[in-house]
Amino acid sequence: MDFQAVLDEIDAKIRPMLGHGGKVASYIPALARVPAERFGIALRTCDGVEACAGDAGERFSIQSVSKLFTLTLAMQHLGERLWERIGREPSGNPFNSLVQLESEQGKPRNPFINAGAIAVADRLVSLGDAKADILALMTSLAGEAIAFDEEVAASEAETGYRNIALANFMKSFGKLDNDVDPVLDMYFHQCAIRMSCVQLACAASFLCRDGAHPVEGQSAVTTERQTRRINALMLTCGTDDAAGDVAFSIGLPCKSGVGGGIVAVVPDRLTLAVWSPALDTTGNSLMGMKALEMFVGKTGLSVF
Amino acid sequence: MDFQAVLDEIDAKIRPMLGHGGKVASYIPALARVPAERFGIALRTCDGVEACAGDAGERFSIQSVSKLFTLTLAMQHLGERLWERIGREPSGNPFNSLVQLESEQGKPRNPFINAGAIAVADRLVSLGDAKADILALMTSLAGEAIAFDEEVAASEAETGYRNIALANFMKSFGKLDNDVDPVLDMYFHQCAIRMSCVQLACAASFLCRDGAHPVEGQSAVTTERQTRRINALMLTCGTDDAAGDVAFSIGLPCKSGVGGGIVAVVPDRLTLAVWSPALDTTGNSLMGMKALEMFVGKTGLSVF
Amino acid sequence: MDFQAVLDEIDAKIRPMLGHGGKVASYIPALARVPAERFGIALRTCDGVEACAGDAGERFSIQSVSKLFTLTLAMQHLGERLWERIGREPSGNPFNSLVQLESEQGKPRNPFINAGAIAVADRLVSLGDAKADILALMTSLAGEAIAFDEEVAASEAETGYRNIALANFMKSFGKLDNDVDPVLDMYFHQCAIRMSCVQLACAASFLCRDGAHPVEGQSAVTTERQTRRINALMLTCGTDDAAGDVAFSIGLPCKSGVGGGIVAVVPDRLTLAVWSPALDTTGNSLMGMKALEMFVGKTGLSVF
Amino acid sequence: MDFQAVLDEIDAKIRPMLGHGGKVASYIPALARVPAERFGIALRTCDGVEACAGDAGERFSIQSVSKLFTLTLAMQHLGERLWERIGREPSGNPFNSLVQLESEQGKPRNPFINAGAIAVADRLVSLGDAKADILALMTSLAGEAIAFDEEVAASEAETGYRNIALANFMKSFGKLDNDVDPVLDMYFHQCAIRMSCVQLACAASFLCRDGAHPVEGQSAVTTERQTRRINALMLTCGTDDAAGDVAFSIGLPCKSGVGGGIVAVVPDRLTLAVWSPALDTTGNSLMGMKALEMFVGKTGLSVF
Repeated sequence: MDFQAVLDEIDAKIRPMLGHGGKVASYIPALARVPAERFGIALRTCDGVEACAGDAGERFSIQSVSKLFTLTLAMQHLGERLWERIGREPSGNPFNSLVQLESEQGKPRNPFINAGAIAVADRLVSLGDAKADILALMTSLAGEAIAFDEEVAASEAETGYRNIALANFMKSFGKLDNDVDPVLDMYFHQCAIRMSCVQLACAASFLCRDGAHPVEGQSAVTTERQTRRINALMLTCGTDDAAGDVAFSIGLPCKSGVGGGIVAVVPDRLTLAVWSPALDTTGNSLMGMKALEMFVGKTGLSVF
Repeated sequence: MDFQAVLDEIDAKIRPMLGHGGKVASYIPALARVPAERFGIALRTCDGVEACAGDAGERFSIQSVSKLFTLTLAMQHLGERLWERIGREPSGNPFNSLVQLESEQGKPRNPFINAGAIAVADRLVSLGDAKADILALMTSLAGEAIAFDEEVAASEAETGYRNIALANFMKSFGKLDNDVDPVLDMYFHQCAIRMSCVQLACAASFLCRDGAHPVEGQSAVTTERQTRRINALMLTCGTDDAAGDVAFSIGLPCKSGVGGGIVAVVPDRLTLAVWSPALDTTGNSLMGMKALEMFVGKTGLSVF
Repeated sequence: MDFQAVLDEIDAKIRPMLGHGGKVASYIPALARVPAERFGIALRTCDGVEACAGDAGERFSIQSVSKLFTLTLAMQHLGERLWERIGREPSGNPFNSLVQLESEQGKPRNPFINAGAIAVADRLVSLGDAKADILALMTSLAGEAIAFDEEVAASEAETGYRNIALANFMKSFGKLDNDVDPVLDMYFHQCAIRMSCVQLACAASFLCRDGAHPVEGQSAVTTERQTRRINALMLTCGTDDAAGDVAFSIGLPCKSGVGGGIVAVVPDRLTLAVWSPALDTTGNSLMGMKALEMFVGKTGLSVF
Repeated sequence: MDFQAVLDEIDAKIRPMLGHGGKVASYIPALARVPAERFGIALRTCDGVEACAGDAGERFSIQSVSKLFTLTLAMQHLGERLWERIGREPSGNPFNSLVQLESEQGKPRNPFINAGAIAVADRLVSLGDAKADILALMTSLAGEAIAFDEEVAASEAETGYRNIALANFMKSFGKLDNDVDPVLDMYFHQCAIRMSCVQLACAASFLCRDGAHPVEGQSAVTTERQTRRINALMLTCGTDDAAGDVAFSIGLPCKSGVGGGIVAVVPDRLTLAVWSPALDTTGNSLMGMKALEMFVGKTGLSVF
């Protein structure tokens, strides 16, 4: 299949729609000032073939897409023990809800809601230098130096009352091993990682390769079994409250972020990364989702 | 792949475990008296090749597996209009919960929780002779006469207080068009359909054939797009509270019932039906799930 | 104190405000056609002195005010055993909510929310001829023949989906001893009792007399201790979601109904009954509450 | 009535029961090491007559009893404007629950649950030097110097994850005007006020005197109307989840704290303070509640 042509076509169709509808995340200045008219798309096949279109080379704040990689890092180190503290079920509630956490005694439903990602961050803080470790993983996977946007991280920390509430709430149930501050520092930093679509498509490509590292010769990122499980979690929980609808209309494991980025996986075929900052009412990139729907429509690639 | 050999192997491994662990549903006598030691498994490939093992020819109460077929019937007639009354998101709550229904004004989260299936039944009652229509569909799909177990239907009606509550609750929100009684009569009857694994694997085989009817020459059951969507709903919502875990450990679209039956789909490859009456704590067949896990392990067939 | 003068003054002030603001309950025709411009007020002191003003002699549908008397009847027969099935705490949720009932396994928070009153009705059905028993109690307390409005009772039954849901929900938790139908028949009938303010003030006057029957020579309705407890329940739970606000602004034990009636008690002094059909947003009589506030303001009679 | 004799009798009956049943709060060391065998009781009539028994002169951590006085201070300064940010209804949920706060967008149900008291603290921080102001009020009301226990305040701050979560959660809804830190500093300090039963009975005696200051010649603490309202709030919300039961079995406005103290009011008659550190399962002083029940039984003084 000529994937470059497919992406070009999608880019051509999406571009005139940019700036109409959707809203760029505005809770911190660094996100609010990103122009709504950006759109990028990139893919990497399981054999390493790459294609991209639009603003695929521009770095943006990956936000919750980072949860995919902190989960990967935690699974590498903890294996099944990770699940003692975190569930694997869709929550049926908003990504930043505290309600379920109260009735379930501080154990988050899955690693992709905020509470779950904070619980993962807690494990990473216990395991080593969490911030350095995640940058090292990202840099290795992307094949290029990846860094935090410290301005974004600082803004997240300043205005992150809901996440501070979540972390303290879990701590009150004895479900965080570390002090709240270093855990949140890790969490706010992981959300502030900047990457391009091209880099993300490469970094997440182990997910379409049964866990094999994107760069030949490197050891596996995750086992085949773990890789399948990450894909399953992405499909059932990766786009929060919209997960059912995304499975229904796109049918691919996805992980999205409020920066407008989405990573999607066609197991055994390819990994996609799209980016467009204007969000729909569910907090997912409006044109990013549209582009994925077009991609599935044009290629017939869907897990169902 | 020699699927018959795979099923025989699974049957051989499962059989010694039967009767150890799990509990047969006991809320009505007709279900309670089914022996726990039963196990059947059947599959049908997209090309119509069949294989089966164990008690695959024995009929059992398909219970919530019927929701798959009433959904299919409703989608055939209503298309996208079906979604005006029913959502497509995992509920994050038990299958018979009323909580979410209250905050969401009587609109069920998805067609596979009880409230959603009752809402589907309401649409079918509006469309014609719902009970005759579902039997006609099942008979056509299975290629053999399918019938209700009237004893089970009567028991369901007698003890179905929670479902009566759900139906009246939705009615109080103006979300049922018909009287509660005929809607519940339909619902209690669909749960009382009796089929064997062989019949179920055949009946659900349109789900691995892009909607094509199991019997050559018949018109399509659902469109390709609808078929994908049903599979997506099965994966995200088909095993209720355990959906995330089933996606995680098995990775196939599944629909289960408290009678111990499960239908699973490998898109573009095959449809499986398993049955074993003893249930795990999530209300899914203990050995049925085990068998599916073995099948995926042995064949590598999983959507992820 | 010249209570007649106080009531006349209140009537004079309220009358010009009638018909402005508030909404008559419209879920059944028999309630919807009651003119919004009605207002009646009556009181009876602990010594049997009576006073009344406005439409105090006109009978209306007492609706949830009846819960006060079914509770009294159940306490007479069951004493403390009543509380095995029903709590005594404010619910913090709407009067017809099912949410709390789910997490609390079918045990209603208090006897004044619908679920609690249905649980009380269930006990009364077990104890005898519930409908005859409540009419006998009311007739004895009011000193005049009291009857059901069968049209209202039939309408309640026809449209009472939420209450049917509540009853079946409790039954599903094994918390009703009787079949749902006779319990709801009792509940829908008690709501359909018709009484005037004068009759209600008399009937409820045992609450300001430590339980002594309104008619001299008759045996006590409730013990002193039980009487205090009913008053306490009225204050904390008698006006549903508005109970805190009513205690705050009026400071008297009250029980209200959607027919627009309210019974209020000044312990050891007097019992009041007011009626005006237009309801505020909390489902309590708009002018009834206003009148009680005026009464407390003018007389200084409040429990606080 | 010879109140001194009544209190002596109560003390004599309670003393042998001390140390049997109930649990001293143990979440901070300074509370955990208070001996369970303490019991004190004091009262002050509306005319200034005092009586006391047992350990009535021993100072203890008043904890949530302080919410009564911060509410008083806030009502003095803000009047009805206070209620823009805080409700007046029982919550129906545990005192430290976050669930309701989520569905009600950060507006606490009443000033006596933790979230409500934190919201009150926020208003006091805006109005001046909150910590100095509350000590000045308490010192004036008690007629003796009142101070914080800084060890307790520091421990509360160190382990108060749930309260930190509550404050940040409200802040995330824009419902706190000040930074979280000074608000929580005020809250943790008010909980750490140390007073004796004698001091508390005096300080809260304005509540049985229509707001008149305990010390002759001083200006009123609150208006008569405000005083009634505080009493009403105490009755409906002052003992959290047990408020209905306390109204039912004791029938007096009460405010309790996990230090084992309770203030109770008989309007127009007297104010009581009891203390015994062992708590029942609802978090109220086991022997304190027992003593109040005895007091009401012996004197017949109850608002109902």
